[in-house]
Amino acid sequence: MTNSRADFRTIWLKNEDDSIVQIIDQRQLPHDYVVADLTNYRDGAYAISEMLVRGAPLIGATAAWSLYLAGLEAEGTANPRRFIQQAAAELAATRPTAVNLQWAVDRVLAVIENADDNALPSLLRSEAEAICYEDSEISRNIGSHGLALIEAIAANIPGRPINILTHCNAGALATIAWGTATAPIYMAHAKGVPVHVWVDETRPRNQGSQLTAWELGQRGVPHTLIVDNAGGHLMQHGQVDLCITGTDRTTRCGDVANKIGTYLKALAASDNNIPFYVALPSTTIDWKIRNGVQEIPIEQRDAREVSHIVGMVDGQRKEVCTTANNTPVSNYAFDVTPARLVTGLITERGVCAASESGLLSLFPEHK
Amino acid sequence: MTNSRADFRTIWLKNEDDSIVQIIDQRQLPHDYVVADLTNYRDGAYAISEMLVRGAPLIGATAAWSLYLAGLEAEGTANPRRFIQQAAAELAATRPTAVNLQWAVDRVLAVIENADDNALPSLLRSEAEAICYEDSEISRNIGSHGLALIEAIAANIPGRPINILTHCNAGALATIAWGTATAPIYMAHAKGVPVHVWVDETRPRNQGSQLTAWELGQRGVPHTLIVDNAGGHLMQHGQVDLCITGTDRTTRCGDVANKIGTYLKALAASDNNIPFYVALPSTTIDWKIRNGVQEIPIEQRDAREVSHIVGMVDGQRKEVCTTANNTPVSNYAFDVTPARLVTGLITERGVCAASESGLLSLFPEHK
Repeated sequence: MTNSRADFRTIWLKNEDDSIVQIIDQRQLPHDYVVADLTNYRDGAYAISEMLVRGAPLIGATAAWSLYLAGLEAEGTANPRRFIQQAAAELAATRPTAVNLQWAVDRVLAVIENADDNALPSLLRSEAEAICYEDSEISRNIGSHGLALIEAIAANIPGRPINILTHCNAGALATIAWGTATAPIYMAHAKGVPVHVWVDETRPRNQGSQLTAWELGQRGVPHTLIVDNAGGHLMQHGQVDLCITGTDRTTRCGDVANKIGTYLKALAASDNNIPFYVALPSTTIDWKIRNGVQEIPIEQRDAREVSHIVGMVDGQRKEVCTTANNTPVSNYAFDVTPARLVTGLITERGVCAASESGLLSLFPEHK
Repeated sequence: MTNSRADFRTIWLKNEDDSIVQIIDQRQLPHDYVVADLTNYRDGAYAISEMLVRGAPLIGATAAWSLYLAGLEAEGTANPRRFIQQAAAELAATRPTAVNLQWAVDRVLAVIENADDNALPSLLRSEAEAICYEDSEISRNIGSHGLALIEAIAANIPGRPINILTHCNAGALATIAWGTATAPIYMAHAKGVPVHVWVDETRPRNQGSQLTAWELGQRGVPHTLIVDNAGGHLMQHGQVDLCITGTDRTTRCGDVANKIGTYLKALAASDNNIPFYVALPSTTIDWKIRNGVQEIPIEQRDAREVSHIVGMVDGQRKEVCTTANNTPVSNYAFDVTPARLVTGLITERGVCAASESGLLSLFPEHK
């Protein structure tokens, strides 16, 4: 398929060559729209670890498509299943925090467990396609349930747009389509409910200024970029009606691990009685853990993400160093927002309280 | 005087020419150490509004020295006092939030009110010198009182450094010497109490990464740069023992207006039972107002501060644009931290509760 910028997908099979998976190299946004080819599973692992793709659902989908590529590479080898399993282990190790990376890998491995060797590529392809289709449907359902929340708030605030604050990019670029946190926003906008989005810059990787602002702009949703420091002030002054973020990992009790800084916004929302919702596909729920602060390992990333930044100067992309050369840096990628600060979870099955009983009311199979 | 980088002052009369005031152009740090000449009061107004100098005490001192320059310019004119008063009005309008800009201007104007025209330059010079001397003494006293707090915490945490988080730059660069929030840290370090400072980057102007990290590095204090989003996570995990920030304006009841994002850190400190102190010279107290959120006007600054950033590439300073060209931006410079989130105020007269009664116990003349 080809991809239009205004109505993009984030991962697809190349039109004229189905041995190549294509993605948007999201590191180049918002300055350049660059499509990258994945020709083998290591390209996929690289795309995940170097964040050409990011966002929990898209990471899972990229892992699935990478296993399809591994299946093509394995054809004719002595033990193709072994090759694919080793690829799966490598892929699963690329980002430790995103639970549905492991989920996607496990799901794909289960499908091929008892299959004939020569059926592996087509099984892997159809499973990757299914994961993408299902993710689009999940986003659409999250959007519908979140839309109802926005409409309820809009009913009480006539005459001006609903101001929604979001952190990082839980947008279409993080999923296959629609996004998670953005799905309700896109649906409200499409339905004519006036919305305006405060976009947190989201240091150090600036996913807000570089991705969320870009995709909202592509789709015509009014928005304003702010630094991560600004949300509390806006909330103190009645300029935020609702917060919606995504999550990379959700515990059984409703704690959410999301991009570093989410916890600070949840504190400010709580302090100002502003609803703070987290949108998530249920694949991000880790039913085995309860206490997010204690149990979720937080990835530390390269200091260079903090000390260096890419931008445009004289029509060229340049990476500049903003710190003194000898400045020590620490770079935690996520933090955990305790369930007590989360007003509700927007899932594909509906909205529930951020608690074990809330989640089990929607997902009783995990009782 | 000349200025050494390791033991700098921030404003001084040029050694060989006392019609010129010199400052460090703090916009060039940490990459370049550049001294700027102020040859007339408009240079001073420019230095304040364009943030060659920043920080409440240094802004006040710069305004006072600028009025000295205005006094030199006014010599021989028909109405030198009128000239100086007009300069004072221009200077006072450069930064609306910093209360001791107005304080310094008022103080200087009072001194010259009934003086002979030909005495004006020397009166203005001695008043600017007095403001600088007094500010150094204030910082020294804040340092002594804050040192006692650090020593008390250190007594309960043997065997490792005390981890102190600070936001923005309330450092030596914001004052004449020592700083406010940094004064206790420098004194603890000098006394051999092991300290380590978490330096918030402080978007959008990066005063933390560019100024605080620089001056801590110059003076050998162990420190680590973090993005503004990271403090909550560190506090959740026991990696912060104490927060100390500065303030640009403090209300009679102990609310503090400080760099945007301070409120979010105070919320996180409160949520994790970590002491949150604010260090301030009493000149930043605005005794006329009580409710900071309602009564303190918050300056909005240029969108370009958010969308563009200066850094080094290939040995040159370059300003890069990190956003898409059409991204709308909002840029509030300060927020207000309510007194209920502040453990205590460290002033030149001692430490008190962040409340009207606390402040009046130290400053009974304002009853």
